Amino acid sequence: LEDLIRFFEKKDNVSLGKMLKEVENQTPLSLEILKLSSFRKGKAHIIGITGPPGSGKSTLVGKMCKKLAAKDLRIGVVCVDPTSPFTKGALLGDRIRMQELGKLPNVFIKSLATRGNLGGLASSTADIVQVLDAFEMDVILIETVGVGQIEFDVLGVADTVLLVSVPGLGDTLQTLKAGIMEIADIYVINQADRPGADESVKDLNLMVRESGKKDWTPPIHKTVATQDSGIDELVHEITAHKKYLERSGLWKEKRQTRNVARLYSMIESLLAQRVEDHINMEESLKAKVQDVMNGERDPYTTSQEIVDRLIAKHNSYQYGG
Amino acid sequence: LEDLIRFFEKKDNVSLGKMLKEVENQTPLSLEILKLSSFRKGKAHIIGITGPPGSGKSTLVGKMCKKLAAKDLRIGVVCVDPTSPFTKGALLGDRIRMQELGKLPNVFIKSLATRGNLGGLASSTADIVQVLDAFEMDVILIETVGVGQIEFDVLGVADTVLLVSVPGLGDTLQTLKAGIMEIADIYVINQADRPGADESVKDLNLMVRESGKKDWTPPIHKTVATQDSGIDELVHEITAHKKYLERSGLWKEKRQTRNVARLYSMIESLLAQRVEDHINMEESLKAKVQDVMNGERDPYTTSQEIVDRLIAKHNSYQYGG
Repeated sequence: LEDLIRFFEKKDNVSLGKMLKEVENQTPLSLEILKLSSFRKGKAHIIGITGPPGSGKSTLVGKMCKKLAAKDLRIGVVCVDPTSPFTKGALLGDRIRMQELGKLPNVFIKSLATRGNLGGLASSTADIVQVLDAFEMDVILIETVGVGQIEFDVLGVADTVLLVSVPGLGDTLQTLKAGIMEIADIYVINQADRPGADESVKDLNLMVRESGKKDWTPPIHKTVATQDSGIDELVHEITAHKKYLERSGLWKEKRQTRNVARLYSMIESLLAQRVEDHINMEESLKAKVQDVMNGERDPYTTSQEIVDRLIAKHNSYQYGG
Repeated sequence: LEDLIRFFEKKDNVSLGKMLKEVENQTPLSLEILKLSSFRKGKAHIIGITGPPGSGKSTLVGKMCKKLAAKDLRIGVVCVDPTSPFTKGALLGDRIRMQELGKLPNVFIKSLATRGNLGGLASSTADIVQVLDAFEMDVILIETVGVGQIEFDVLGVADTVLLVSVPGLGDTLQTLKAGIMEIADIYVINQADRPGADESVKDLNLMVRESGKKDWTPPIHKTVATQDSGIDELVHEITAHKKYLERSGLWKEKRQTRNVARLYSMIESLLAQRVEDHINMEESLKAKVQDVMNGERDPYTTSQEIVDRLIAKHNSYQYGG
């Protein structure tokens, strides 16, 4: 434990890398790391960047990272890429650029492997972000790919969400991304030197106005990441959003909400484990679950029975009166 | 209860409509309806139809329904449309056609209002489908709109998933719908009289081959729903998929998996309620949750404490030895 605390104090990239390995592999030590980091986190500005593959997210994240690093800020980058077979490869150039960035002393880059297990991805992202935060990163950039459920879960830990698109995908956005639209704080039209950029801006403007967010109107921002164009302004927008969050009290509120959500999700998984153990220990319950499986017993009565057995009645009386 | 059972025996659309109202509004009676229907369900072929707005899903569902109804099958249609502000309106024509269909004695159409609560939508869809199934529908068509998490949850109750697309959206599919691709059993290119249809088929073919499903290779099917073209063949494909499910044992397996998942999700929500009650009853726990919220206490230790308090230790010893 002493060693761990010293690791946190050192704040160098080697210590950090070691910690994150432990957390990613869920070693016995990881729980201690997470406990310690939970008291040290809360200061980083966490930025989620999403959008379809091919929109140039990686390049954009790279350029933003470089810009922020030049301001002497400590930057963490987390790449969450739950790639389906369809999105493999093609990003070698970006990867090389990323490696260059990773050599800067105030930049730390972590790629999350998915190993086909999408379910655990959101929670391990949250853990990684927490440790980076505890290591006193000023900004954490999370790059994620837009695939349903996981995208939402991953973006749930972000203070500021960037939705990156390219000209001509306006139609796409309108039809498919309704869910994401509602959580975006800043829209980026990347590759804005391509035809149709202004139309995309116009389309998005219309949608933003229709959706009617209250205090913060998501700005729509054009970039050409490969040419470093529009990045300064984007970083400026991000800072403006941070100030808005602080001013409105949302900065604090988001952290509190996330802390409570984390507690409840942990309670939930502990209870799920207890339920599992409980059912496995009692033959009569196992048989009942089997009956439900075969449609010979209803889940409504059975779930009640199992919960009542797990939580002895007198246990609730104890506090009730 | 007698009355309820009689309702189930009658199997007319008026009884069914009454039952579904109860279930949708979660009245006290709804639990009894769900219990009864859980023993009577399992025979219907449940088909989920998803895809972006504008792909002509509603028209397609209408045509499929008409075709199936002409075969003297009993058809239930469930429209799940968690519309964002962006997708409102525009479907009046389809709605009128739907109303026409709803007048057939062997067709029952249910639209699910969302009232802004997307969380409960998947579970109420499952309930509605269960009651329709218990009313001995042969086929249940669920139409849903592609918006992230909910789409997956809704499609979780389906035996056969149709992904509807239009020419030119190939690019879109490739980039945005990776998650959905993996659960589609049949691809439909609707409005196939538009240019680019054959290219879309080619693109999809490539993707399907790359994804490498084992026993069932999802067919790619062209339709022009407005002209009734390709519907017969589509119905044929759907029947072929049903036969495949039965032959492979997946038909039974899917039902069993769904039954168990339903049981566990009910246990989960009962436990969540108990946790909430438990925390509200004990001031010391409330204070701890508050501390976690403010980052002054770690969620790892606290979740363990709360679970241990909820499930008294002796309770586990009891079964342990």
